[in-house]
Amino acid sequence: MQILAILCHPQPGSYNHAVAERACRALEDSGHQVHFHDLYREAFNPILSAQEIQRRFSFDDQVLAYTQELTSSGGLLIVHPDWWSQPPALLKGWVDRVFRPGVAYEFEGEEFMRQRKIALLGGKRALVLITSDTPEEPEPPLLKRLWLEGVFRYCAIEQAACHILHDFFNLNPQKRAQWLDFVTRVVWDCFGPATQGEGPSNSSRSVPSS
Amino acid sequence: MQILAILCHPQPGSYNHAVAERACRALEDSGHQVHFHDLYREAFNPILSAQEIQRRFSFDDQVLAYTQELTSSGGLLIVHPDWWSQPPALLKGWVDRVFRPGVAYEFEGEEFMRQRKIALLGGKRALVLITSDTPEEPEPPLLKRLWLEGVFRYCAIEQAACHILHDFFNLNPQKRAQWLDFVTRVVWDCFGPATQGEGPSNSSRSVPSS
Repeated sequence: MQILAILCHPQPGSYNHAVAERACRALEDSGHQVHFHDLYREAFNPILSAQEIQRRFSFDDQVLAYTQELTSSGGLLIVHPDWWSQPPALLKGWVDRVFRPGVAYEFEGEEFMRQRKIALLGGKRALVLITSDTPEEPEPPLLKRLWLEGVFRYCAIEQAACHILHDFFNLNPQKRAQWLDFVTRVVWDCFGPATQGEGPSNSSRSVPSS
Repeated sequence: MQILAILCHPQPGSYNHAVAERACRALEDSGHQVHFHDLYREAFNPILSAQEIQRRFSFDDQVLAYTQELTSSGGLLIVHPDWWSQPPALLKGWVDRVFRPGVAYEFEGEEFMRQRKIALLGGKRALVLITSDTPEEPEPPLLKRLWLEGVFRYCAIEQAACHILHDFFNLNPQKRAQWLDFVTRVVWDCFGPATQGEGPSNSSRSVPSS
């Protein structure tokens, strides 16, 4: 399977970078082909313009490449920190500019009547891995619902998961290392098991106690 | 009262522009002083960099101006479209770069212990006005909760309201005009009544049937 992997964290060498690296390694170890992008390093422009909305097409080479890779991939991996219960603006703009009509969804019907939405990303899988400074709470975090309901469900990506490493600032290095092992497991859970001889033979989903 | 008014819509002449104009007029009619910013027109850079995070200060003149105005204002007005149950990236980045430690919140306590958050925007008021293509649903929209819980409550902005004009694409011009009148009323509800002789004497909150 081809996987489009998107990392959005401003600091090279961050824990988010380690999460993305671990996730990509788990994917490659399983025989998947990974298209990896570090949005900060690639200096992506996250602003969807009026011209791009009206034209329904982007002339931006980066947007075209991301779009082509999203369309041809069977899965999407996203790694980012929790900023205001939302992704950083740079990643939000990646969604704004790549998840466009004709790519992620379409409307059909007579021009003068209520349109029907057609979701275009059905069958793809998605995994979002997030670090957050907020403690875990009983209710599902808004950020998790944003990805699963606000973005993925709208485009018919049903096989999706979102995992948040809570209270990050107060975790000790051991907990942080444990979560990297957890990343490997959830990557396999989401995108299919490791090829024979690699990884655990019985990949049960388990969450560290942090 | 000074009010910081932020508009984020890519298309000049959009309905969002009309909403912002109506809201600012209602504020000025009430004697408030409005600092108005159209983020697309001002070509704001929404990307919070690693340097800016570490330095805990921005050298960007726009960020400094927005920050100073937020700090000195008694209220915040925001107008934007619903993109993926979230604000456009440009507006998200405005929050990322302006609602910073020392401005919107602070952490205190011994460096080696769990820190206590101090919210810094207590006593301010906020109003968010949003257009959305999604129909109204029984549950409060994620986007509304994002602003009220994810952003404002974190900074102790308790007197806050968020109104969404749903199913915008399918509304007729009459409904859209009605909502502009509704905007005037909610602006007065949020930021204080009109000065004597201006506006309705009994400004009851009423929502159009759309």
